[in-house]
Amino acid sequence: MVSADAKIISSILAGERLALARLLTQVENDLPEGRAALSGLFAYTGRAHWIGVTGAPGTGKSSLVNQLAHYYRHPSAGETPRTVAIVAVDPSSPFTGGAILGDRVRMRDLTGDPGVFIRSMATRGSLGGLAHSTASLVQVFDAAGYEIILIETVGAGQAEVDIVRLAHTTLVIEAPGLGDDIQAIKAGILEIADVLIVNKADRPGVENTERALLNMLQLARPAQVHNKTGSLIPSWTPPVLRTVATEGIGIGQVAAEITRHREYLLNTGNWEDRERLRLDTELESLVQDRLVARWHAGIPDFKYQDVINQLVERRISPQQAVDLLIVDE
Amino acid sequence: MVSADAKIISSILAGERLALARLLTQVENDLPEGRAALSGLFAYTGRAHWIGVTGAPGTGKSSLVNQLAHYYRHPSAGETPRTVAIVAVDPSSPFTGGAILGDRVRMRDLTGDPGVFIRSMATRGSLGGLAHSTASLVQVFDAAGYEIILIETVGAGQAEVDIVRLAHTTLVIEAPGLGDDIQAIKAGILEIADVLIVNKADRPGVENTERALLNMLQLARPAQVHNKTGSLIPSWTPPVLRTVATEGIGIGQVAAEITRHREYLLNTGNWEDRERLRLDTELESLVQDRLVARWHAGIPDFKYQDVINQLVERRISPQQAVDLLIVDE
Repeated sequence: MVSADAKIISSILAGERLALARLLTQVENDLPEGRAALSGLFAYTGRAHWIGVTGAPGTGKSSLVNQLAHYYRHPSAGETPRTVAIVAVDPSSPFTGGAILGDRVRMRDLTGDPGVFIRSMATRGSLGGLAHSTASLVQVFDAAGYEIILIETVGAGQAEVDIVRLAHTTLVIEAPGLGDDIQAIKAGILEIADVLIVNKADRPGVENTERALLNMLQLARPAQVHNKTGSLIPSWTPPVLRTVATEGIGIGQVAAEITRHREYLLNTGNWEDRERLRLDTELESLVQDRLVARWHAGIPDFKYQDVINQLVERRISPQQAVDLLIVDE
Repeated sequence: MVSADAKIISSILAGERLALARLLTQVENDLPEGRAALSGLFAYTGRAHWIGVTGAPGTGKSSLVNQLAHYYRHPSAGETPRTVAIVAVDPSSPFTGGAILGDRVRMRDLTGDPGVFIRSMATRGSLGGLAHSTASLVQVFDAAGYEIILIETVGAGQAEVDIVRLAHTTLVIEAPGLGDDIQAIKAGILEIADVLIVNKADRPGVENTERALLNMLQLARPAQVHNKTGSLIPSWTPPVLRTVATEGIGIGQVAAEITRHREYLLNTGNWEDRERLRLDTELESLVQDRLVARWHAGIPDFKYQDVINQLVERRISPQQAVDLLIVDE
């Protein structure tokens, strides 16, 4: 393994944006320098609040992320501004290059601010790899001292659920009038929602959407959960909030509920549980990569090709192929 | 490993629906009996045409799958009817329980037909597991003699792309007026489209959608590709077709293009290449499972927990944790 360059580590910890941008690319491409720096930075992680933001196309979730970032930089009187990183995993997100039209806060208000860093991800990674590389990017931001990390995903499909599962707090965005199809897709992701938002709440149908969400919540949630010492504590009931993100309406309340959720997690020990679960998942995935790499290095290519040929000709089954490939290790 | 029950194998090969339904459940839940039967049935696979059908919610892809299945059972004069299996991976699909309203062909026309088998998948599997279990279900249908296997997915997210990659032929469904967001999501999946369909073609905006697809196709496709013997052959140009699935309009032409694509694959050697790629992917995934299972069995739980504790306390990095867990194997 390449050992971490002390200069890179200190640049990141000092908040140098150019070094940060370079490292993010190395980490996203899973280069040896990136992995080494990630390893060296790991001791400085664990301070940021990871917030997943998910919702179908058309719900306006990019506008909401935009406004929320702006709010954290310019909060209500008496609150301290926080530094914000945005990781856009959604290929349709304007953070990947498009413009947010009609937003009260424009992209340039964020991009000119040294307390904000926006990063979009390539979403064409290998099977299951997306959640892993998102987690790595977030760790870099965490080590670099960003206090709030917003992770925007499209919110459909297993890969997105896996990404959102990494977050401390998950916002699920709905909007009136998107049709029943989309509601049905959401059923899976609703279970991991901590705050539900009906955006575009100035549109007709907002009451119906709100009611549908409240009904689904009643079905899905137990009233109490066990904390890590085994006591029964009240479970978190996800609030259902209305926003009009493009106008900045309701954003302060979203931020307040995120803070309240953070306090709930810390008070119940759930914060540490989620942390442990995340590190466990990451470790399993790294162990798997290492095992597969070691196996690949140990098997001659001609042998592998011979087994594949037998498989294609239906002379052996996949299970028998595995027996041939692993037995003599 | 449990060895395959000869009675189950012969029931499946004889086309017994009850045995088939039972086996599909065992395979989907990855039970030992299911794995054993899958292994025993493998020699009988490789005959079906796997067709992936993908599109965002609201494009009407379930209606299209429905009509296509009906068409294969009742084709134009002079064509032979084919048996059809439908695997619905899309959680919003009516095949998972809802009704298709307004369709000329109703679900009951399919469900009463012994030449049709419809199966919906639970979509809440583990990370990356969905494509794997879909492939297993399709293999069972293939061995059971179903000639056409339609795999319906929602078409957003990496998991869906991975599923569709398994198919010989992939249909991508669009509809007019779904907005730019959805177009953007499709950009990734367009690259694996073999037939593009603008459904709901009686709605306004059909020309715009068609033009957008044709433009994207021009950007994405080379004119020639190398076949497996290294010669340059004309690449397949995905046709863009109009349908009104609920009325059964344009379905025959879709079926004709699917047949033409099959012939293209067979003539160019691409059919066999896709088959080899799929078996290769499946084998890698089985090898990985076996390696991880063997590693898990070999590591004492107290040691794993100790490493996780050190990780949570930031005393070691994830890479160092892997070194501790794999070094002494």
